[in-house]
Amino acid sequence: MLNKGCSEEEIFTFFSQKKREDMDHDYILSSMCTIPHPVAVRAHCMFMETNLGDPGLFLGTASLEQLLIERLATLFHLPTAGGYATSGGTESNIQALRLAKVSKQEVVYPNIVVPESAHFSFRKACDLLSLEMRPVPLDRNFRMDAEKAAEQIDKNTICLVGIAGTTEYGMVDPIADLAKIADAQDVLFHVDAAFGGMVIPFLNNPIPFDFALPGVSTIAVDPHKMGMSTIPAGCLITRDPDLLHSLNIDTPYLSVKQEYTLAGTRPGAPVVGALAVLDYLGKEGMRAVVSGCMKNTDRLIAGMELFGIPRAVTPDVNVATFTCRGIPEPWKVSWTRQGHLRIVCMPHVHLDRIEAFLKDTGEMYA
Amino acid sequence: MLNKGCSEEEIFTFFSQKKREDMDHDYILSSMCTIPHPVAVRAHCMFMETNLGDPGLFLGTASLEQLLIERLATLFHLPTAGGYATSGGTESNIQALRLAKVSKQEVVYPNIVVPESAHFSFRKACDLLSLEMRPVPLDRNFRMDAEKAAEQIDKNTICLVGIAGTTEYGMVDPIADLAKIADAQDVLFHVDAAFGGMVIPFLNNPIPFDFALPGVSTIAVDPHKMGMSTIPAGCLITRDPDLLHSLNIDTPYLSVKQEYTLAGTRPGAPVVGALAVLDYLGKEGMRAVVSGCMKNTDRLIAGMELFGIPRAVTPDVNVATFTCRGIPEPWKVSWTRQGHLRIVCMPHVHLDRIEAFLKDTGEMYA
Repeated sequence: MLNKGCSEEEIFTFFSQKKREDMDHDYILSSMCTIPHPVAVRAHCMFMETNLGDPGLFLGTASLEQLLIERLATLFHLPTAGGYATSGGTESNIQALRLAKVSKQEVVYPNIVVPESAHFSFRKACDLLSLEMRPVPLDRNFRMDAEKAAEQIDKNTICLVGIAGTTEYGMVDPIADLAKIADAQDVLFHVDAAFGGMVIPFLNNPIPFDFALPGVSTIAVDPHKMGMSTIPAGCLITRDPDLLHSLNIDTPYLSVKQEYTLAGTRPGAPVVGALAVLDYLGKEGMRAVVSGCMKNTDRLIAGMELFGIPRAVTPDVNVATFTCRGIPEPWKVSWTRQGHLRIVCMPHVHLDRIEAFLKDTGEMYA
Repeated sequence: MLNKGCSEEEIFTFFSQKKREDMDHDYILSSMCTIPHPVAVRAHCMFMETNLGDPGLFLGTASLEQLLIERLATLFHLPTAGGYATSGGTESNIQALRLAKVSKQEVVYPNIVVPESAHFSFRKACDLLSLEMRPVPLDRNFRMDAEKAAEQIDKNTICLVGIAGTTEYGMVDPIADLAKIADAQDVLFHVDAAFGGMVIPFLNNPIPFDFALPGVSTIAVDPHKMGMSTIPAGCLITRDPDLLHSLNIDTPYLSVKQEYTLAGTRPGAPVVGALAVLDYLGKEGMRAVVSGCMKNTDRLIAGMELFGIPRAVTPDVNVATFTCRGIPEPWKVSWTRQGHLRIVCMPHVHLDRIEAFLKDTGEMYA
């Protein structure tokens, strides 16, 4: 650290240089985040200094957080559901498992049953919470096998997890079947819809994944992914609005006396950003965005198959995967654990980018 | 959620209304957060869409995170220390305890030894990680009693915790003594300097609390508190730059293959904001800010004592506490668990606000 500070000009010239080392979003095809919507950025800047960790000081911002939760709860077919804004899917998943653990405190060696496709955050959560993770094989379409899931559940199972929009293949697990199993076996059922929660409700034929299914207990959804908000904006939504209070700890010297969140200080800015996008676009606007992403996904798959690069699976949401050796520079894609090429058709991946990528790939494979 | 969206004007008119329900910072005397510095806000906006959770896409932003860690490591007298940007003190403290737990995996019933003044995040962390928390009584100046701490340590102790700038009384525990104890007993020693880490180095007579003491293993410091950055900006700094790798989990389909962070997606914006403040102010600028806060703390204590409202203790950092029955509206203060009035003299609490508060309080007690 320098003794005397630098001028603002020096600092921001340096920052601009550094920013140019970041990848241009024009070439990012691998991310589940995107360029935030302009109304999210405007809202973010307006609420820049707010701290939801001390809600008594920020009553207005805190009421907007509750409004966001209400919007999502209603979208997920249960307006009375509860929840709060997390730092993202990882925190939401950790907290769902904490809720499960505290609800079955009598279990000495608790386990959770998850699909093999579960996001790596479940590994973190199990490590943190000392839970045994029981991975369930997928069917040939990369969806959790519900029958095999049922077989894995025993008296020590505190939570069943299903994924609505898997990170690698964009598949929605058979949530309706899983919900029935969870209900019958009296196990908390957490749906990780971090990605799909802002996609599925806006599809032409939405796949059942939410509180409309009686067995679904909690849902993770990330507005900073397909909700086009700023980072960090995640949400954990709970069927029982009081469930989170089982995680309460005392918080002396704050404006509220207890809290159930994982983080203490929490930014209000991205939370209001998330609300801004939903209210600005409405259902129709979100349907248009999702429809565009799905059309681009279809176009990408069709285009790649013309080059003899077959899809790995037909995805439920806007993630396309292929059996493919490699792709041309400077495109930034990713690869699944099974070695498939993976491309996420986020809102910043406009049709002209898909066409440009197809042109480059076609030349490589010509 | 509405079918058709609202106009941007409608939305932001509503948001403005809501924002007016937030407390005016002119009256917030209870928070350890403050109005972010303008250079932090500018940097935040410039890096709004960056995601440190996928550092291969944001190489420039990721290098600025490393630069922030270097700045703090150097400030804490060990330029080779490692670390990363967390969502705040809670994540930093959880991660420090995870590091401690993984370093002594053979311990079946692990415990941690913390002062009674420890922040409530340690309760969350112990709940998450199934750790026994052993609170150590404070001396009459609200500092951890080092001798009693030593007595609490046994073969199952995985971590000793000291606080550099307690939340309630602004005290610095006897870190030098505790470091010797931890060193002698071969226990990881975590210093929670979430608040004090950006104060103590800039005092006229800095109290030893950092890596200059051989026993200190890890330090939590929050740039979104006295570092005047935007929220969320915390940091965990580790003496051993490779220590964090013991928390690595595999992260397929990301641009890096492993990660040790608690969150997945992580905002780059507040991290660059934190760096902007340090580089803009430099040591001299930070000394001036801290000196102003300490002078205001002294003035507040002197003023209150003139009204017959005695200090609870003479603080080490800019937190003033009093034996007092109540304070006038609309000032927002807080109260410690022992029932003392508590005021944090943050950078937004300018001298004229202290004088206005003293005037109102004086009239109430006249």
